[in-house]
Amino acid sequence: MAISEIVKELRQATGAGVLDCKKALEASNGDFDKAVEYLREKGLAAAAKRAGRAAKDGLIGIYVHHGSRVAAMVELNCETDFVARTQEFQTLAHDLAMQVTAAQPQYISREDVPPEVIEAEKQKYRAQMDGQNKPEHILDRIIEGKLEKFYQDTCILEQPFIKDEDSTVEDLIKSIIAKTGENIVIRRFVRYEIGQ
Amino acid sequence: MAISEIVKELRQATGAGVLDCKKALEASNGDFDKAVEYLREKGLAAAAKRAGRAAKDGLIGIYVHHGSRVAAMVELNCETDFVARTQEFQTLAHDLAMQVTAAQPQYISREDVPPEVIEAEKQKYRAQMDGQNKPEHILDRIIEGKLEKFYQDTCILEQPFIKDEDSTVEDLIKSIIAKTGENIVIRRFVRYEIGQ
Repeated sequence: MAISEIVKELRQATGAGVLDCKKALEASNGDFDKAVEYLREKGLAAAAKRAGRAAKDGLIGIYVHHGSRVAAMVELNCETDFVARTQEFQTLAHDLAMQVTAAQPQYISREDVPPEVIEAEKQKYRAQMDGQNKPEHILDRIIEGKLEKFYQDTCILEQPFIKDEDSTVEDLIKSIIAKTGENIVIRRFVRYEIGQ
Repeated sequence: MAISEIVKELRQATGAGVLDCKKALEASNGDFDKAVEYLREKGLAAAAKRAGRAAKDGLIGIYVHHGSRVAAMVELNCETDFVARTQEFQTLAHDLAMQVTAAQPQYISREDVPPEVIEAEKQKYRAQMDGQNKPEHILDRIIEGKLEKFYQDTCILEQPFIKDEDSTVEDLIKSIIAKTGENIVIRRFVRYEIGQ
C-alpha cells in the first residue's frame, strides 16, 4: 500500500490530522497498529477515548436535484449505529450529498489531490503570469495562494458549506463530532449529471 | 482511444450490437461518423430513424435501501427530455437503481469486462478442475459455460431482472425502447454500502 493510503486509513481510523498521522507512522516504523497506539498515547486520536472503535458504521446520504438530472451520493461514517440513527447525523449525510451536488468537489481533502494534478495546476498558474517579469519568490507566493484557492474549490472539507458560507464543511463536521462525541469521516462521494 | 471504447461509444450512439459495431468500424477504417452511417444504411442502428440523435438526455435513477446503509445511482440515457419525463422511463431508472443495489453488478455489458479479469476467471475454473483428467475440448466447453454464468452474474444487462426473474435487464430495457420509440442506454452506475 502507498504511504498516502496508509495515512488515509490511519486518519479514518483515528480522526487525527495528516501531519500527526505521518509522525505516528514514522515513530512506529510504518506499523499501523503501533501508529494508532502512538496517536492514542499522545491524545491526538479524536476517538482516543473509545479504544478500538474506528468509524465503520454510518449512512449513505443521497441528494437528487429537482428534475433528476443531477444527483450525488456520500458515504458518511461514524462509530456506532446509535449515532448513525440520530437526526443530526442523518441531516449531515443529506447536507453533504447536497454539497456534492451543488459545489462539485473532486476530492475529500487536500491530501487526496494527486501530485501530478498539483504540478499541472502550478504550471498553469506560472503560464498565466508568463512575461510579467515578477521575481521568483513573488511568483512562488502567488502560486501558493492560487493553490490554496484550488484546494478550497475542489476539496469538500475545505469548501464553504453551501447552507452557511461562513463555515467550511470541515467546521460543520467538527460541530457534529462535538455534539455526538463520535469520530465522523466522509469516506467517499460520487456525483452524476446527465451528459457530463 | 482504445478500440473497445470506440465500440462502446458507437453502441451508445446507435444502440447497435457489439459485433455489428465492430464490423461497421472495420468497414469504415475506424472512422466513427462513417461507422454510424454504415449502421444506419444496414438498418442496424436501433435509432436509425432518428438521424443524428444519440442518447444524451435522461435521468439519474436512485434507490436507497431501508436504513440507508446501501444505495445505488444509475445514469439512464434516452434521446429526448420528453421521454425522460415519462412514467415508464422514470420507473425504469428507479428499477435499475434497485437492481444495482440488490444484484450488485460490476459491469454494464460483457464487453466492459477487462480481458485480465476474464483470464483470471478462466484460470480459476481451470484450477478447480485440476486433476480431473478431462480432455482439453471438454475443459474448454466447461470453462465457456462458467464464463457465461459469470457474465450473467456480473453484467447488469445479462442479469435476471430482480422484479421478474424470467427476463433479463436487457429484455426490460428493450421493452421500454419499444414503448417509447427511443434508444435507451445505461451509461454508468455506482453502488455504495457501509463498510464495503
